Amino acid sequence: MIDKLVENIKKTNAPIVVGLDPMLSYVPEQIQKKAFEEYGETLEGAAEAIWQYNKGIVDATYDLIPAVKPQIAMYEQFGIEGLKAFKKTVDYCKSKGLVVIGDIKRGDIGSTSTAYAVGHLGKVTVGSKTYAGFDEDFVTVNPYLGTDGVKPFVDVCKEENKGIFVLVKTSNPSSGEFQDRVIDGKPLYEIVGEMVDKWGADVIGKSGYSAVGAVVGATYPEMGKVLRDIMPKSFILVPGYGAQGGKASDLTHYFNEDGLGAIVNSSRGIIAAYKQEKYAQFGAEAYADASRQAVIDMIEDINGAICK
Amino acid sequence: MIDKLVENIKKTNAPIVVGLDPMLSYVPEQIQKKAFEEYGETLEGAAEAIWQYNKGIVDATYDLIPAVKPQIAMYEQFGIEGLKAFKKTVDYCKSKGLVVIGDIKRGDIGSTSTAYAVGHLGKVTVGSKTYAGFDEDFVTVNPYLGTDGVKPFVDVCKEENKGIFVLVKTSNPSSGEFQDRVIDGKPLYEIVGEMVDKWGADVIGKSGYSAVGAVVGATYPEMGKVLRDIMPKSFILVPGYGAQGGKASDLTHYFNEDGLGAIVNSSRGIIAAYKQEKYAQFGAEAYADASRQAVIDMIEDINGAICK
Repeated sequence: MIDKLVENIKKTNAPIVVGLDPMLSYVPEQIQKKAFEEYGETLEGAAEAIWQYNKGIVDATYDLIPAVKPQIAMYEQFGIEGLKAFKKTVDYCKSKGLVVIGDIKRGDIGSTSTAYAVGHLGKVTVGSKTYAGFDEDFVTVNPYLGTDGVKPFVDVCKEENKGIFVLVKTSNPSSGEFQDRVIDGKPLYEIVGEMVDKWGADVIGKSGYSAVGAVVGATYPEMGKVLRDIMPKSFILVPGYGAQGGKASDLTHYFNEDGLGAIVNSSRGIIAAYKQEKYAQFGAEAYADASRQAVIDMIEDINGAICK
Repeated sequence: MIDKLVENIKKTNAPIVVGLDPMLSYVPEQIQKKAFEEYGETLEGAAEAIWQYNKGIVDATYDLIPAVKPQIAMYEQFGIEGLKAFKKTVDYCKSKGLVVIGDIKRGDIGSTSTAYAVGHLGKVTVGSKTYAGFDEDFVTVNPYLGTDGVKPFVDVCKEENKGIFVLVKTSNPSSGEFQDRVIDGKPLYEIVGEMVDKWGADVIGKSGYSAVGAVVGATYPEMGKVLRDIMPKSFILVPGYGAQGGKASDLTHYFNEDGLGAIVNSSRGIIAAYKQEKYAQFGAEAYADASRQAVIDMIEDINGAICK
């Protein structure tokens, strides 16, 4: 799957990912109205609204981008109905040829981590049959529990040709509280980065990149540079561009010399582009066209900053 | 909610929690057969089987125990249908007066962490209405992202009178890879423990305990003793007893002098008791009676070790 991601990036010449993190407040009035007319102001109505909203954005952008990253929390907040919209979104994006990165940040131990891996990347056995529960292509994984938590995901990646991105240095202001603490002269995120390199060592694809990638926030460019060297074969999934303050010029060193090795996420900046002054002329009716323009602008911005 | 947990523990004199972590392989033949006859060997069939299995265990034990801890991964692996069984289990346990600890180990940042908190502990707004998605009483939270990740949960706890248990020192063999690393002379888990004490400082219930508790594995008793002192007002949720090797005699120091302050989990040891030699006489038909006996034995074992 890492090879498909690389292929999609080369095809689109766009090392970006669109974060499908719908808040109900982003969904244009006309979509909310229609969904509520059909299902009432219910969880089902909310789920229908975010699904239709997503579909509009995907239809307007899928030919320009290699991948999407739905954030499961935004669906999970609407309970079962929300998760149905998550699953619909995953399936629809895959049908459009997009690589789907489930931003689920799961992590547990042993058989429990296996259960998450099976549910999101693999297949579960029921009697004599097997079924894929959510079936994303990649998921994000939390490393706090150590190898016991990550290894079951790597095993499923190997079997199913899928991938993961392990949280190394997150983009948020307080990420340093634990991640930056210095251990034997090195910050914790470097130690986690070294483990990512190790966990990914025997799942290297034909592209030369590993099925085990890392999450490193755009908001910490100096750390990104160090981590790039520590994990040369890992793709870096980069949150924090745009709305959170990360600039394209900060991201040069997240990429390798081949112009690959990183994929930069934007969520709100793309999906709610129509709410920005810059794209206000599109209006809420043409919200998806605003998203398309924002994607075009983002690709230009990021590519302008990569040394090739 | 922490006060309800304390009240339930006092009422039952049982500082234990039953982990409802069903593997399909634990579910007795007769239950699987009936579910598959009704729904086929499908995700729906699997979900029905684990729900009926859970219901049997809850019916046979609810009068003896204060709380249950369903592990969401075990349901999530069956996709949407599995999560419906999770929700049914949560609702049923609450209807029986049990405190429900959703073992979800979520953790993200800002609005995303809020979405998880809202989905599992709070209420989401849809137009002019509000709905509870999963509605557990407590959930477990991963601290790797720092205060940004935990604070949104604490805010929802305050509004909704709910609680959380933050992962501090997990029970698994590799938990030390990151959690034990020494920072300024202190292991990371102690630093996380200090933050738990801080995060919980303004959500103290009438019982004197905080809505912010901690997860500390039974398999590391020396660390449990230190952490008890660092977080005097936090309840400790203790996994790793029984199947993972933790003994009751190791747990004395997880409790405060009032005999409270910890709640010990057992999952497989209770729910799959009928598979152990000790309870084999019950047989698969009476699996729930085996679970009841295992609960009685566990309560005696734990109470024997608490200094009161």
